[in-house]
Amino acid sequence: MEWKTKITKVEPNHLVTKGYKQEDLIGKIPFSHVVYLLLKDELPSDEHGKMIDAIITACIDHGITPPTAMASRIVASGGVPLPTAVAAGVLSIGDAHGGAIEKGAKFLQDGISRMKKDRKSIDYIADILVKESRDQKKRILGFGHRVHTSDPRTKKLFKLSDELKITGDHINLSRAIEKELEKQTGKKLPINVDGAIAAITSDMGFDWKLGKAFFLIGRVAGLTAHVYEEQTCFKPMRKMFTADVKYDGPSEKEI
Amino acid sequence: MEWKTKITKVEPNHLVTKGYKQEDLIGKIPFSHVVYLLLKDELPSDEHGKMIDAIITACIDHGITPPTAMASRIVASGGVPLPTAVAAGVLSIGDAHGGAIEKGAKFLQDGISRMKKDRKSIDYIADILVKESRDQKKRILGFGHRVHTSDPRTKKLFKLSDELKITGDHINLSRAIEKELEKQTGKKLPINVDGAIAAITSDMGFDWKLGKAFFLIGRVAGLTAHVYEEQTCFKPMRKMFTADVKYDGPSEKEI
Amino acid sequence: MEWKTKITKVEPNHLVTKGYKQEDLIGKIPFSHVVYLLLKDELPSDEHGKMIDAIITACIDHGITPPTAMASRIVASGGVPLPTAVAAGVLSIGDAHGGAIEKGAKFLQDGISRMKKDRKSIDYIADILVKESRDQKKRILGFGHRVHTSDPRTKKLFKLSDELKITGDHINLSRAIEKELEKQTGKKLPINVDGAIAAITSDMGFDWKLGKAFFLIGRVAGLTAHVYEEQTCFKPMRKMFTADVKYDGPSEKEI
Amino acid sequence: MEWKTKITKVEPNHLVTKGYKQEDLIGKIPFSHVVYLLLKDELPSDEHGKMIDAIITACIDHGITPPTAMASRIVASGGVPLPTAVAAGVLSIGDAHGGAIEKGAKFLQDGISRMKKDRKSIDYIADILVKESRDQKKRILGFGHRVHTSDPRTKKLFKLSDELKITGDHINLSRAIEKELEKQTGKKLPINVDGAIAAITSDMGFDWKLGKAFFLIGRVAGLTAHVYEEQTCFKPMRKMFTADVKYDGPSEKEI
Repeated sequence: MEWKTKITKVEPNHLVTKGYKQEDLIGKIPFSHVVYLLLKDELPSDEHGKMIDAIITACIDHGITPPTAMASRIVASGGVPLPTAVAAGVLSIGDAHGGAIEKGAKFLQDGISRMKKDRKSIDYIADILVKESRDQKKRILGFGHRVHTSDPRTKKLFKLSDELKITGDHINLSRAIEKELEKQTGKKLPINVDGAIAAITSDMGFDWKLGKAFFLIGRVAGLTAHVYEEQTCFKPMRKMFTADVKYDGPSEKEI
Repeated sequence: MEWKTKITKVEPNHLVTKGYKQEDLIGKIPFSHVVYLLLKDELPSDEHGKMIDAIITACIDHGITPPTAMASRIVASGGVPLPTAVAAGVLSIGDAHGGAIEKGAKFLQDGISRMKKDRKSIDYIADILVKESRDQKKRILGFGHRVHTSDPRTKKLFKLSDELKITGDHINLSRAIEKELEKQTGKKLPINVDGAIAAITSDMGFDWKLGKAFFLIGRVAGLTAHVYEEQTCFKPMRKMFTADVKYDGPSEKEI
Repeated sequence: MEWKTKITKVEPNHLVTKGYKQEDLIGKIPFSHVVYLLLKDELPSDEHGKMIDAIITACIDHGITPPTAMASRIVASGGVPLPTAVAAGVLSIGDAHGGAIEKGAKFLQDGISRMKKDRKSIDYIADILVKESRDQKKRILGFGHRVHTSDPRTKKLFKLSDELKITGDHINLSRAIEKELEKQTGKKLPINVDGAIAAITSDMGFDWKLGKAFFLIGRVAGLTAHVYEEQTCFKPMRKMFTADVKYDGPSEKEI
Repeated sequence: MEWKTKITKVEPNHLVTKGYKQEDLIGKIPFSHVVYLLLKDELPSDEHGKMIDAIITACIDHGITPPTAMASRIVASGGVPLPTAVAAGVLSIGDAHGGAIEKGAKFLQDGISRMKKDRKSIDYIADILVKESRDQKKRILGFGHRVHTSDPRTKKLFKLSDELKITGDHINLSRAIEKELEKQTGKKLPINVDGAIAAITSDMGFDWKLGKAFFLIGRVAGLTAHVYEEQTCFKPMRKMFTADVKYDGPSEKEI
């Protein structure tokens, strides 16, 4: 095995991460800015630093409702170490849970590339993208939420991106799509928190392949709290009672 | 299944975590302080806020050398989603990797309880604890490191805990044990980064059961960077070459 | 990294597992007997072969009720690859779920060692062990079940172990403990499926450290079916409705 | 949460899996046939039973060389429970490791559908598919192996599928592609073990979405043996030595 890395140089008594000595980072650069450094190869400006911190904070927890927290708590209830149970929650982050950040960011980044190549306006592109998605009967990811019609996290994140002058083409395209969706479908499908993070991180210059990373790094904090609560406050082994599950398989037969 | 939680209240357009509206936390309270809130049920003082940030920053990465990073990169090389690979690294956090924080914190917290109950001095307890561990041939966890003799992270963390006036009984006991170990064994076994975090979080009032949590929350940032590097810069499927593995099992036989 | 293994020799066009060429095992030795070979370093006798097959078959599935299946299905619903979701279920196998096999086997193996050392009878040891556990208020693992009072799997496994003449000291001790528990507590606590597997594998000479291995290897088959069912028959993203979760944390406050 | 399942009915003292009482399966139906039942909703014929057993046996282990075994052993070395470490290996089963079974099976199943729809011969379709893949510069998965030029597992599996009269359109297409690849590229790219399993399970009527399932179910046995070996024979915490890793990131700078 030949291993190379650009992340951390490890020598006796000497640790250098993305060019910075760890003892210089510790206590001087906020953790969330170090996250930025790790994912973007440079320390953030003040504005980008505030924004990345807000983004991962917006991902910390959504109670026991989503797969992440349920999986972590159920696995914790099996009697395993805290990190094993936290990891189980992380495993549920996929195309259907957190995945809208990744796919939403790719969609916006592709949209802006196309806008620049074709020398069109954002509104023109938004109109086209919504039409295409309707023709192909494909949902545009990052719009609408199963619980929230006006998600307080989304509003706060966009307020910050405006104040910090981070708002650019991708957020504007996202907002134009929201309007087009309402115009073309008659339904309000507001940008959700995944869509907001997709748009903002795109305007910050992040690769869409990191879409799930922001969610994961923030959510791990909440999952840790869930596992700790499960391990210290509840009896082991969560189970479904047989009354809660309906068997609709083949009827009983002899071998 | 009956579920209760003290972590987050989820209502339409309303998210309250440990008593605080998420839109009040986002952009106002640094992410690392929200971690503190999640694990300790209150927002940190300025001093505790700085300290918790430094602690999780000190855990971000140790290059490709430890099991966490190796596991994440090897799993990433199998062609799986980013969160699956990050979770694989988290799984390796156990008694032998990060576990010294948990066990070290329990050891120090038990030591201080005993000191208070028996109305003894820290030096007296340190002497006893080292003697007992030598009699039982048990290692005291959190001392000595496979690579570093003077770990820059440890020095920086203790410098901060002193400056922020967090240093208390647990750190003092830890330092007294370091001296006793040298006195009784003749060997220098300096407090390592796990031992430092065990001592400092104990002086901050954290439950030792959260020992692996600080490591995990910080390290996830580094693991995410490793998985992203593996997925974007290297060919799939890491493998050992057969020349690197020695088979020393039963010799070949017929059935 | 220096790697050695006694499991499989890998050379070009040549694979030897525990001394046997893989092409000799494939199609000739039943899979469950190869499991035995991998865990015990020898092919089973006919009797042991039948028994190991029955044991792992007895572990295949318990519907959606236990943590294994719930975790796998919830993680699958996040939109991740099949193996990621199966692994999530495996993570929940711990001290409280499947762990009774490991701890139960250790308890029985320690009990029989003590019986031999002290030259006592099985009934004598059973009496002592139940008394000690009651004095220490510790549950003896492997007795009683949350759903079944007369588990069909347990009855079938013991019927086979008797027929195959595998029944020995460990199973006899297990049965003697069952009687003593009823005598001393007045309650029927029948040996459960975990306890049965603990006793039988102990009589087959397996290390108690492999206790969770039999459960895991069998259960993976059921988990794979659950993940496949979840992915092909259900909508993504299982969630708890907010009505199903009660928040009992701190009341709302301002920052 | 509303749960339904066709897999197992759970009632007190009564467990029915895919229509069969578990006590009827245990000890009577070989474990590998129960795997078939779980994935295909019916018990196998004698021929299919022998074949499925051979297939999962062919997946048991490939030494420490692949990501599965490396990940399981590295995670085991962190000091975690056996199932946690086995699960880590399972996580590495993805598009690049085991994924060729899934994608290969889809490719063959699509090819045969096309052949039937267009009323063409297998050789005609093989020629077209190889040409198309060369035009699109896409590898056809399931051909060629990093270690084996004549994999003993592949030969044995095909020998069995011929003897058991399972060989049908998909295997024939697979063989025709192998010939076409040599004809059109001049290179020998023999069907590998993934390709063989893809072809045989397709001829057995399995959904290609189960491609990774056979590999996973078999490999778990080997991974369990690796974790047990790691935990009982080796010192904790595998690590890379700093000499084995090259840091090629940004050079050191001041903050």
